[in-house]
Amino acid sequence: MKLGENSRIEIIAVGNELLTPYYQDTDSIYITQRLNDLGIEINFKSIVGDSRDDLADCISSSLVRSDIIFLIGGLGPTEDDRTREVVASTLGKKLIFEEKILNKIRQRFELRGFEMPSVNNKQAYIIEDSSILENKHGTAPGLWLEAGDKLLILLPGPPHEIKPMFENYVWPRFLEFQKQFVARRVLKTSGLTESKIDSILLDVYPLQPSVNLTTLAYPGQIELHLFSRSMESHKKADEALNDLEYDLQKRLGDNIFSSSGEELEEVVGSLLRQAQKTLSIAESCTGGLLGHRITNVSGSSDYFQQGVLTYSNDSKVQLLNIPYDLILQHGAVSHEVAKAMAIGIRKISGSDIALSITGIAGPNGGSPEKPVGLVYVGLSWEGDVEVAKNIFLGNREIIKTQSSQKALDMLRRHLLKYQKKR
Amino acid sequence: MKLGENSRIEIIAVGNELLTPYYQDTDSIYITQRLNDLGIEINFKSIVGDSRDDLADCISSSLVRSDIIFLIGGLGPTEDDRTREVVASTLGKKLIFEEKILNKIRQRFELRGFEMPSVNNKQAYIIEDSSILENKHGTAPGLWLEAGDKLLILLPGPPHEIKPMFENYVWPRFLEFQKQFVARRVLKTSGLTESKIDSILLDVYPLQPSVNLTTLAYPGQIELHLFSRSMESHKKADEALNDLEYDLQKRLGDNIFSSSGEELEEVVGSLLRQAQKTLSIAESCTGGLLGHRITNVSGSSDYFQQGVLTYSNDSKVQLLNIPYDLILQHGAVSHEVAKAMAIGIRKISGSDIALSITGIAGPNGGSPEKPVGLVYVGLSWEGDVEVAKNIFLGNREIIKTQSSQKALDMLRRHLLKYQKKR
Repeated sequence: MKLGENSRIEIIAVGNELLTPYYQDTDSIYITQRLNDLGIEINFKSIVGDSRDDLADCISSSLVRSDIIFLIGGLGPTEDDRTREVVASTLGKKLIFEEKILNKIRQRFELRGFEMPSVNNKQAYIIEDSSILENKHGTAPGLWLEAGDKLLILLPGPPHEIKPMFENYVWPRFLEFQKQFVARRVLKTSGLTESKIDSILLDVYPLQPSVNLTTLAYPGQIELHLFSRSMESHKKADEALNDLEYDLQKRLGDNIFSSSGEELEEVVGSLLRQAQKTLSIAESCTGGLLGHRITNVSGSSDYFQQGVLTYSNDSKVQLLNIPYDLILQHGAVSHEVAKAMAIGIRKISGSDIALSITGIAGPNGGSPEKPVGLVYVGLSWEGDVEVAKNIFLGNREIIKTQSSQKALDMLRRHLLKYQKKR
Repeated sequence: MKLGENSRIEIIAVGNELLTPYYQDTDSIYITQRLNDLGIEINFKSIVGDSRDDLADCISSSLVRSDIIFLIGGLGPTEDDRTREVVASTLGKKLIFEEKILNKIRQRFELRGFEMPSVNNKQAYIIEDSSILENKHGTAPGLWLEAGDKLLILLPGPPHEIKPMFENYVWPRFLEFQKQFVARRVLKTSGLTESKIDSILLDVYPLQPSVNLTTLAYPGQIELHLFSRSMESHKKADEALNDLEYDLQKRLGDNIFSSSGEELEEVVGSLLRQAQKTLSIAESCTGGLLGHRITNVSGSSDYFQQGVLTYSNDSKVQLLNIPYDLILQHGAVSHEVAKAMAIGIRKISGSDIALSITGIAGPNGGSPEKPVGLVYVGLSWEGDVEVAKNIFLGNREIIKTQSSQKALDMLRRHLLKYQKKR
């Protein structure tokens, strides 16, 4: 193994399709993530097509600048799968026929009642001096090749083949050379803007050099990605994150809704279940997105009872018993109608809690008084109702997303009160 | 310009974040797409971090194997933005201070009422012999550098900066060297499986070498991507696609729902508008996804009136007047209940047409008789009702998506009958 303090690691993804606008190289992201988990970083990534010359050029360049080279793809049976032969010829090595590989490939076909096509013969050739990485999910074996002071690892492209091969045969050998122990955590927040969070965190950033904090922004959701390294143990790395999380929780409080991966709709679902409360909703401009998110959670039928998509004014009157005069007087997008929608659906459904959304998702339908992005969100529960006015920026999709996010977040904050009362 | 018949083109994306699992290099996909439009292909893509040595290694390797090199990113004002200086030192060229660039950067800041931070000074340095590509959307100018028989093009990383710069200053120079004319078209289908489509198209594939057909599969939607090249003109390339589309339309007929980019919900929206019909919906297992998709189309309030999310049995009785006995007898997921839901919501809303969905999205709630993925979709219109039984495979999200797709497709096929009657 050629992994040392200064080893430079390169991933080469092979395939014409990866040089088109239609396919993303996701295998290299996977390998990056897994090696990062060991504190090992990638120095270069390369993408090259199936052309013999281009592939040879790419491998030659990599051999100059990198110590460990992952080659992904081009191990299949067809004419344009050339990784094996080009690696061999670039290194001046022979291809050797391995009867036992051929037998395994033939067995795979026979198990499914097929005869092995003759093109698959070429997959039974391995590069001189390499050892075989077994492929339990496909015909192409991987190869582990130490050549001089370089290490080349040839892996198949299909994700369901490369992942088990990497986990079973590659990862354990890198594990021995683990440089550092790594811990990660993601704190998801809602209710604060990115610049607000930045200003709150201004003096948190320059902590310890071993801990890293990155902010990622999505519509209505800012995520804090925490990352730490330790030379000693995973426990040490994790403890460093505990300290950082403690500090962040103190500063951001209830704005943090999740620290172990849950989405907002999952958190709200757990809180509803804990509080033994049922939910119904009335949506206008989001048109079903809020219900879709709530019901993306498996088991949501335990607390979610019903919803109405009152898109037209008539349906607001008809399904929610909202007085037509109220809509005429204030407009369908108003504090008053949002309030009436939340009260109405709660009454009709008999649910403990109800949410409502009415707004202008755009791009048309806005006015100077009521611009695109104006959205009222209502929350009704036994004894009271609350309405929030929002002005969201963005396209139709982003405004719908932010509206549903705001509704879920209002519900979450409301449910937290029950928890605190206990 | 160094673009000839055999020019090899490489894109290098620069930045530590691109070597983490969290960021995808999307700029290179954009450039690939735009050059592909001219029949020009990319031979290599490389990704490298901000380290001076790694960047120098990467550029050196590229200079050996490529003729034209795009360098994206690393032109910002901070310490780790090093593309300019590393390109200069690798080529043995000087960095030259340009007063007029500094003035432009300073003006950008002053326009917003800020003083220019001193770090931005470094962005006013250009590489000897290069020409400036103006940046109207940021502080970092791009550079066009012909060095011996190589061409290097340095562009900023932020998508809203690189795109206009590429379109205004880079694209026109490549246009002169257009190798081929290219045309693209996407035919979207619903209602057929990928293997069914493959078998129908078996003898279509080996058409002309200048025309290419790729099949991409999504839940409930198979897309045919058509691509053609001509040495003569765009018109010729487009005509070749006309011939292929004619053949495909003949074989696939009404299974093709769009040939100019529209999503299924947009096609359904246009058909509803043409037929002057209104729509209401009743969703159970999709929980709002169908309504969300319908209302993703701007102007959908013209035909979409209302929906109900009848998740609980009680709500089916209460909102849709479905007899409780019917649910007890057949179960909530049944032909009979789907039918009653479609008839019920049509009657309550007064809409011309109604859709209903009831099914088991999983992962829990299945049984041997009614497995996860069993979904009934109902369509009701004046005088009749139709119910389709489906068994969808996949996780909760995929089953919800396929269910909404099936409902929209049933409605589309129904609306096509009105068109044909005319």
